[in-house]
This record gives sequence, C-alpha cells and structure tokens, in this order.
Amino acid sequence: MRKPAPADWPIHPLLAERWSPYAFTDEGVAEEELMALFEAARWAASSYNEQPWRFIVARREEPAAFAKVLSCLVPFNQGWAGRAPVLALGLVQTLRPGDGSPNAAAQHDLGLAAASLTVEATHRGLSVHQMSGIVADRIRDAWALPDDVLPLTALAIGYAASLAATREDLRDRQRRPRERQRLPGFVFGERWGEPAPFLVGDPRD
Amino acid sequence: MRKPAPADWPIHPLLAERWSPYAFTDEGVAEEELMALFEAARWAASSYNEQPWRFIVARREEPAAFAKVLSCLVPFNQGWAGRAPVLALGLVQTLRPGDGSPNAAAQHDLGLAAASLTVEATHRGLSVHQMSGIVADRIRDAWALPDDVLPLTALAIGYAASLAATREDLRDRQRRPRERQRLPGFVFGERWGEPAPFLVGDPRD
Repeated sequence: MRKPAPADWPIHPLLAERWSPYAFTDEGVAEEELMALFEAARWAASSYNEQPWRFIVARREEPAAFAKVLSCLVPFNQGWAGRAPVLALGLVQTLRPGDGSPNAAAQHDLGLAAASLTVEATHRGLSVHQMSGIVADRIRDAWALPDDVLPLTALAIGYAASLAATREDLRDRQRRPRERQRLPGFVFGERWGEPAPFLVGDPRD
Repeated sequence: MRKPAPADWPIHPLLAERWSPYAFTDEGVAEEELMALFEAARWAASSYNEQPWRFIVARREEPAAFAKVLSCLVPFNQGWAGRAPVLALGLVQTLRPGDGSPNAAAQHDLGLAAASLTVEATHRGLSVHQMSGIVADRIRDAWALPDDVLPLTALAIGYAASLAATREDLRDRQRRPRERQRLPGFVFGERWGEPAPFLVGDPRD
C-alpha cells in the first residue's frame, strides 16, 4: 500500500511517499538494512554536534527484548505495533556531556535523527510509524535509565501491508486521507501569524 | 564545496551530502524553491498530526524582516549567518490546540519538519545550517509571541560557497572533518548502554 502526500508544491518522492502505516507484512528487516537506517540517523545535524539521540532497538526474533519494548507502548499502540518486525524507542541525553548544562535542542535533534532514519527507510522500501504514545516511567524502570536520559518516542519499522491484509478495525485509519494545514498557517514573516511575503499564491486556486 | 559524510554503511546521497556550511554564495533563493522547502516540512509526521512547527522566514531582499531575524541570533552566528540569502526561525506550539494539554512531542516534531525541509533543500542544491544559538527572549518580544509558542532554532538557507570564497576566519570550521560517535555508542538493545545485537560487526575492521 502507498499513500503519497497530496502536496501543493512538488517535493522529493522520499518525502512524499513517507507515511505511517498501522499494518506491516510478516517480512523481517535484514541486519544490513537496519544498520543503514541507524547510520542515516547518525549523520543528522545536532547542536554543537552533541548527537543527543539514543535508540533502543528490538527485532521480533529477539522475543524478550521485543516484548520489553512492546510493553512500554500505550495499549492502543501495543495493539497494532506488536505486528511490526522491528520496534525501537527514541530517547535523548538531556544534559551536555561537556559541562552538564541542559541541552535545549536535544529533543529537536532526536527529531532530526529520526527523520533521517525515516528517509533512509523509505528509500529501502521500508515504512516507519513513529509514536509519542509511550509509558516513559516504564521505560525508565525497565532499562534503569540514567537520570539525564529522557524517553520520548517509539518507532515501528517494517514493510507496509496491503489494505486487504490490514486488520479490519484498523482499515479506516489506514486509508484516512492525509491532511495538513497549508503554508500560510505556519510560515510567517515580519509579524507573527501573518504569512511570509514569498507565499505568493495558492497553486490550487 | 561538498563535504559528504564518511559513512560506515551506505546511506542515501541526500543524507550523506547534507552538511552545515558557514559560508554561502550571493545567489538568492527563488520563491518556488522556498515554497517547496516549507512544503516538505509540511508533510512531516507529528504526534496526533498536530503539526506543532512554526517558522518565521526572512529573505535578504526584505531588509527590515531580515535584520529583525538576524538580531535574534547569538553574536557568533550573526557574524556568518548574515551572509545567507534566507534566514528562518523554528518555533513550536507547546500546547495541543484541542484540550490545551502540553504536547511533549512538539520540539521533536519541529526536528522532523526541519529535517524534511533540509532533505528537500539538499535535493535542490541548497544547504541549510541549523542553529540552536538564538536569543529566545528577543524573539518572544520582537514578534509578541503567544505564551504557548516557544522559539527553538534558527536556519540559514542558501547555496554553499567554495572554500576559497569563505571568510578566512571561518575556513578552519568549514573544512573540519565530519565526526560522529559510532552505532554501538547510541543504539542499544535489551540493556541500556549495551549495543543492540544486530550491530554485528564493524565494516572498517
């Protein structure tokens, strides 16, 4: 199944084809593919190159680790993400190692890394469904996290299933149209809330 | 000037070629190019599709807006970023519009959007240098931001200059080798700090 973005302006296919499926095929993800995904994350930009991103990764063929990660998702996400061949958690190092000061960009920079990972995944025919629905305290306990590490996201990684192979109660979500607010709603210029002057026209008008 | 990532595992050229230059050519960025960059940001994933990212954008040909954005960078960044043809600020809506609860993924999701923008930029031959070195209070005052909007980053956008055209005092930064910690340092498995089992070997050994 594909679900390309109905973009107003042409964007690169690796961005337009990215979407977040609720169903995956049974096919596992090869080690070399996974390696490339995290290599992509590795080369993201970060504030002072501090690379505050951390990942916990479990494949279905590691039943204990997989169950441990799955148990840290909120119930709704456990329901569908348990069928993905790979689950990951996204965490951040909240303090700068050099002087112990707070890294205000840490969460943002995890986002940069996760987006790079997702581009690489899309390029390899894989899909990534990111989730904010995690139980952070459970992750903290289960991995005995250092105090300066914050769990933030989860990622289900695998090959998107067809609509026909999607569990019936998830099909509506799976085919829901993709929607976004348009550029004048979030790209401003000299005054807050007023569209930037280069937003000259609406291609659909 | 190019500065591809010395990646251990093959990653997509749009990711490997991304880097953060300190010098830009004088060439401006066409409106259609800018539009596509923010369109790419628009289609990023976000928690509950809330799209908490906001951008303030100023082109050099809008002197008042450009000076206003530039004045909100820390002095070091003002020194080099003032030569970029386009400056932007990245901000987040910190509360979920529906129920006013905090959106814990907002900063992360700005990172997803900024990375998408950067992929589109790389595809178009443009470079983006993101900065965390901003003066948030000055942005808050200058744009009279609502309380639930948080300024977080700045972005310089343009065409990377050659090393020869780079200001002499920035050349060392410009040619500094690209370095990252390796995968076992941030991709863990069942125990915190222990590499995930799929990290089977070091391609350089």
